[in-house]
Amino acid sequence: MASSSSLHLSQALLARAVYLHGSSSDRVSLSTASTLSSFPSFSGLKTLSSSASSSSSNSGSGSVSSRAPRRVGSVVRATAVETLDKTTEASLVEKSINTIRFLSIDAVEKANSGHPGLPMGCAPMGHILYDEVMRYNPKNPSWFNRDRFILSAGHGCMLQYALLHLAGYDSVQEEDLKSFRQWGSKTPGHPENFETYGIEVTTGPLGQGIANAVGLALAEKHLAARFNKPDSEIVDHYTYVILGDGCQMEGISNEACSLAGHWGLGKLIALYDDNHISIDGDTEIAFTENVDKRFEALGWHVIWVKNGNTGYDEIRAAIKEAKAVKDKPTLIKVTTTIGFGSPNKANSYSVHGSALGAKEVDATRKNLGWPYEPFHVPEDVKKHWSRHTPEGAALEAEWNAKFAEYQKKYPEEATDLKYIITGEFPAGWEKALPTYTPESPADATRNLSQQNLNALAKVLPGLIGGSADLASSNMTLLKMFGDFQKGTPEERNVRFGVREHGMGAICNGIALHSPGFIAYCATFFVFTDYMRAAIRISALCEAGVIYVMTHDSIGLGEDGPTHQPIEHLASFRAMPNILMLRPADGNETAGAYKVAVLNKKRPSILALSRQKLPQLPGTSIEGVEKGGYTISDNSSGNKPDVILIGTGSELEIAAAAGEELRKEGKAVRVVSFVSWELFEEQSAEYKESVLPAAVTARVSIEAGSTFGWQKIVGSQGKAIGIDRFGASAPAGKIYKEFGITKEAVIAAAKELS
Amino acid sequence: MASSSSLHLSQALLARAVYLHGSSSDRVSLSTASTLSSFPSFSGLKTLSSSASSSSSNSGSGSVSSRAPRRVGSVVRATAVETLDKTTEASLVEKSINTIRFLSIDAVEKANSGHPGLPMGCAPMGHILYDEVMRYNPKNPSWFNRDRFILSAGHGCMLQYALLHLAGYDSVQEEDLKSFRQWGSKTPGHPENFETYGIEVTTGPLGQGIANAVGLALAEKHLAARFNKPDSEIVDHYTYVILGDGCQMEGISNEACSLAGHWGLGKLIALYDDNHISIDGDTEIAFTENVDKRFEALGWHVIWVKNGNTGYDEIRAAIKEAKAVKDKPTLIKVTTTIGFGSPNKANSYSVHGSALGAKEVDATRKNLGWPYEPFHVPEDVKKHWSRHTPEGAALEAEWNAKFAEYQKKYPEEATDLKYIITGEFPAGWEKALPTYTPESPADATRNLSQQNLNALAKVLPGLIGGSADLASSNMTLLKMFGDFQKGTPEERNVRFGVREHGMGAICNGIALHSPGFIAYCATFFVFTDYMRAAIRISALCEAGVIYVMTHDSIGLGEDGPTHQPIEHLASFRAMPNILMLRPADGNETAGAYKVAVLNKKRPSILALSRQKLPQLPGTSIEGVEKGGYTISDNSSGNKPDVILIGTGSELEIAAAAGEELRKEGKAVRVVSFVSWELFEEQSAEYKESVLPAAVTARVSIEAGSTFGWQKIVGSQGKAIGIDRFGASAPAGKIYKEFGITKEAVIAAAKELS
Repeated sequence: MASSSSLHLSQALLARAVYLHGSSSDRVSLSTASTLSSFPSFSGLKTLSSSASSSSSNSGSGSVSSRAPRRVGSVVRATAVETLDKTTEASLVEKSINTIRFLSIDAVEKANSGHPGLPMGCAPMGHILYDEVMRYNPKNPSWFNRDRFILSAGHGCMLQYALLHLAGYDSVQEEDLKSFRQWGSKTPGHPENFETYGIEVTTGPLGQGIANAVGLALAEKHLAARFNKPDSEIVDHYTYVILGDGCQMEGISNEACSLAGHWGLGKLIALYDDNHISIDGDTEIAFTENVDKRFEALGWHVIWVKNGNTGYDEIRAAIKEAKAVKDKPTLIKVTTTIGFGSPNKANSYSVHGSALGAKEVDATRKNLGWPYEPFHVPEDVKKHWSRHTPEGAALEAEWNAKFAEYQKKYPEEATDLKYIITGEFPAGWEKALPTYTPESPADATRNLSQQNLNALAKVLPGLIGGSADLASSNMTLLKMFGDFQKGTPEERNVRFGVREHGMGAICNGIALHSPGFIAYCATFFVFTDYMRAAIRISALCEAGVIYVMTHDSIGLGEDGPTHQPIEHLASFRAMPNILMLRPADGNETAGAYKVAVLNKKRPSILALSRQKLPQLPGTSIEGVEKGGYTISDNSSGNKPDVILIGTGSELEIAAAAGEELRKEGKAVRVVSFVSWELFEEQSAEYKESVLPAAVTARVSIEAGSTFGWQKIVGSQGKAIGIDRFGASAPAGKIYKEFGITKEAVIAAAKELS
Repeated sequence: MASSSSLHLSQALLARAVYLHGSSSDRVSLSTASTLSSFPSFSGLKTLSSSASSSSSNSGSGSVSSRAPRRVGSVVRATAVETLDKTTEASLVEKSINTIRFLSIDAVEKANSGHPGLPMGCAPMGHILYDEVMRYNPKNPSWFNRDRFILSAGHGCMLQYALLHLAGYDSVQEEDLKSFRQWGSKTPGHPENFETYGIEVTTGPLGQGIANAVGLALAEKHLAARFNKPDSEIVDHYTYVILGDGCQMEGISNEACSLAGHWGLGKLIALYDDNHISIDGDTEIAFTENVDKRFEALGWHVIWVKNGNTGYDEIRAAIKEAKAVKDKPTLIKVTTTIGFGSPNKANSYSVHGSALGAKEVDATRKNLGWPYEPFHVPEDVKKHWSRHTPEGAALEAEWNAKFAEYQKKYPEEATDLKYIITGEFPAGWEKALPTYTPESPADATRNLSQQNLNALAKVLPGLIGGSADLASSNMTLLKMFGDFQKGTPEERNVRFGVREHGMGAICNGIALHSPGFIAYCATFFVFTDYMRAAIRISALCEAGVIYVMTHDSIGLGEDGPTHQPIEHLASFRAMPNILMLRPADGNETAGAYKVAVLNKKRPSILALSRQKLPQLPGTSIEGVEKGGYTISDNSSGNKPDVILIGTGSELEIAAAAGEELRKEGKAVRVVSFVSWELFEEQSAEYKESVLPAAVTARVSIEAGSTFGWQKIVGSQGKAIGIDRFGASAPAGKIYKEFGITKEAVIAAAKELS
């Protein structure tokens, strides 16, 4: 993916040859003009009702706009439009929509697994978005200025695969549709950006997608405010979402949508598939709230399309209206029939998550008048959609030309924007990381983290983030910037409010918007529990979000067990593709940030202390990069009497115990084990040099669950930790009562060696 | 706690002596009459505005109702009321409110830690609730029919500790207030039901409390519908909540409140402390939605009290109005000033979470005219509140008398209700658990789970629960019951919609309503990520919720990695006070349910398969109760050549590998490791009998992260598992590709033995 996100300067050069008036203002005017002209049926429609559509039968025929609704003028496009007369087009739109339906039906049927109901109901909006509304380049799905589309109701992924296939994305060929949900295919059971080029994020767990979309729209608004110039709107795209009842019920969507309203994300347009069916049956059994009113309360513009099945013009008009509302996100409630076209299963939960069955597939073919073999795309539909390849290339070329102009006029801004677009790092960025000596003042790692964040903000143009209403506790404010707000979107301190889950998913969206974004977010470590589903998606979808998690143990003291993490370190060490880092002091915090920034496809969690910690001799950035390393040792021949292992705030305790044991004549190695995952990746030789197999006398100390530590200390070693909930009291008292002490380490070491 | 929830029949007898007309209908009429008469200032107030209050200075003086607003008529109460003339009372209310403020200020100051802002702002509503509105018995905080109060904004716990102290709860004495947030105190940093008698649930993590309250109100509505008779309203209490901006922002509160509206929980009254301040500053920076409108959209009745600082009559009128609305829950938005009374810190975030400091405490004392020493409760305030002890005893005695009548008339219902109130089990309930033989048909453990749930529903009157829109996948429907809905609250299948987080917290509320409730809830195991914060609270607050978590591994197949748990077993094994159970077949599923039901103070998670599994020879309920046990063995002298260990769906694989290795002459023990926690609790002798220390050739197999397994298999053993994300494909294919196979077990066993 990263390689394709480069700027394609050769294409840009080509574009300048094709476009006679390649000035940076051209695309804007062309785009505006064509946006207006491409919706011929938008003649002042204000109230959208189903009667606005001239068709209504459930055979699927519907009125359509009279001209090919393409939105960007170009030689290639104009030709495509002119070859379609009105009649052809009306039937073609219908045919295209049914193609989407049957590709979905056929793929689910062949796999005998999947969710046909949503694609059948949402095919009209899918068609209109991908064929008429959205700007993208199928041959370069990561073209920077593309419109983003998120299927938040990810189980309906066949909708998107069918659309990508028709639109000419190489990632979804006919054979991919035929191997839907099979081992190694590009068409997994839910949309996965890391498997299928053209998918923006990973959805399926409900509510994540709409929250990701808020992040994508935030990213666009931020970049546009930061980089656009009066003579060049170099950043300018929409974010479209389809979400369902399930997404609406999840709390995360309310969190994210409340923020979207607060921030006034006018280019976020969410189409809500209002089909009244969830897995357990009619939504009446559990979902009777007034969604429209709730979204109005959240500050959204709300439109209701009453006939989402065949009222294509209603859908078009709604999208036009949504685009015209610049200061609010829009929710378009599109009332549809799940499984539209299936004579016996439409409008029932049975069509939600199972194949229709051969008999019902036949009945649906008859009902919708579809004479074709499975997986067949009619030639005229194919031809119709084929325009997107040249048009997409032209769009990108046009933008590239524009960028070339921009770069000439605004070289500094262009450089920063390019870093964000490509994900390359400014040379020497890591030199900005602060360094510490044992003489540097003791400090909490949350404060040291803030020093690092502020140092990095100066050199990393894509660093952006904030806290869930704990900025002053998590120490995450970037002092050189103001708040990202509706009126100041160019700023970089994001105020998420007390919305951890939404925050995590929004950061996933930011991170996946462009490779150079480094999104960070913060709360107390224990509240990763609130956002764990989003963190897992970060790990799965390769979004390199940095989770700044402070108050990382009983060391937070008086707030008590509800606020004291115990099992959290273990729970993330068990999670695939994530780095769990627990730095012990300034140098280790800098190392943790270096690792976190460099790991663009792996999120990092930094567990940071509330309490002050000394700057320890022997710690280093390089050490952190290896995950585990020796910070002090008085043994020789790689044969210490005992190895003491600590992480974070307990490394100090291990070091102090080591000092004392050495005074008593022991050969003691003290090891910092800041990241298990990074250590695991080192060579066997290196690992042996730190933890020699022959030395079984090992003591670990960490103010958290001992679960998992047996792997490190071995069957004969001793893991000192906390296997109960915490307590409310001053931190020092809890450490003592729980036996997280130097004395305990010394006693264990003596017992073992 | 359980011991105090018995029925106190001696008190009931006493009550019948005191109350001349001890018939079961008396309390109802008394209560109704007094509810009306106790709010003398409710003279048709419809629009509540701050001008309705005659006072407004921030010195804290305010108009109050002219008579003692007590709500239940009795000899004791009447006397108390009559001793107060209007003037005395007005000043006493004021004094009482300031007592609450200064107890909070002083405790936080002494601890130099805590949150004074909320108690200072919410003292008026706190006073009105505990002194004028709520029905409770301070000497028996678990009296069944008490009104419940939840401080969802748990950081303001000093408010509640002050109120419990004034109301006469033995759990919060003066010395407890003085040891706020100290080791071993009864006044921890956030409200903890397991530490402080009189606290209903454990709050602090925001949004949990309001969702717990929805559970408590659900429980009341259910029991009332099930047990009340035309001549005896034996179940009849309100659930009151104070929640803040933070709770409002959290998605969980929207989930739970959407359900509360859907269910029409008319006796849920939530007071929203609308103080416009969160930790990061003014709520304007992240929270500008229209909360009133959102709650109306959720189906709530909404009232705005504009002057929550001194408009006591407004608060009273709002509560009266809320009680009059029977078919909807009510949100009372009470606009307050955080830190009310502090001349320099009120209305700022600095008063939210830190001690005021000696100087500001002095200034506040001056400002509010408070001449007393720290922790002083003025005698007249003390005397005023002292009524609650006899009144509470009378209330309970009255109810007990009523229950005695009820029991005579409705012995069957009374028996069931008593089980729910006391938490005792019907004799022989466990005989209802189904048993299986190896000849029983292969089945998915999710289906076997449904057999158990339905068997238990017949014998456990307190079993109630449901799924987050996956009832037909989780297999959780109780076939003998209908849906708990607004119109059918006596039923027991709860439809949570796609709201996992709210579901978990609601179940915590149900479980903590009465010891005999056995609340269960269900979703796919991977989506424990959505509700982990609620599950952790279950574990911490000793709510024995049963989490029915199906689709527990890659065995779910095509839905792919977003739906396939990997790290989840490990992540819960690391969590304190929770049972992670992964049964392998029918007998083990029955065993898991037996354990789960019996563990009333420890939640259980049942990880269950989507796919069919055979009934294995050697499995048993008794085995499950030990956590780990031998299901087959051909060794002698406790010296097998190799021990194969499996859980859940992989126990079958371990058993098959064992069979094959035995054919080749090996002495093989196959161990089911269904619950690590239960095994850990067994005697050293028992553990040695299952996993002898001398046998280091151990192979484990589990379709999940190997994290933690080193403790079981030892340094020389081999853990077969999955340390990457899953994949979308048919289950059998994934098992094979990931090496979760019999062949892998055999190969590992041969390598080790």
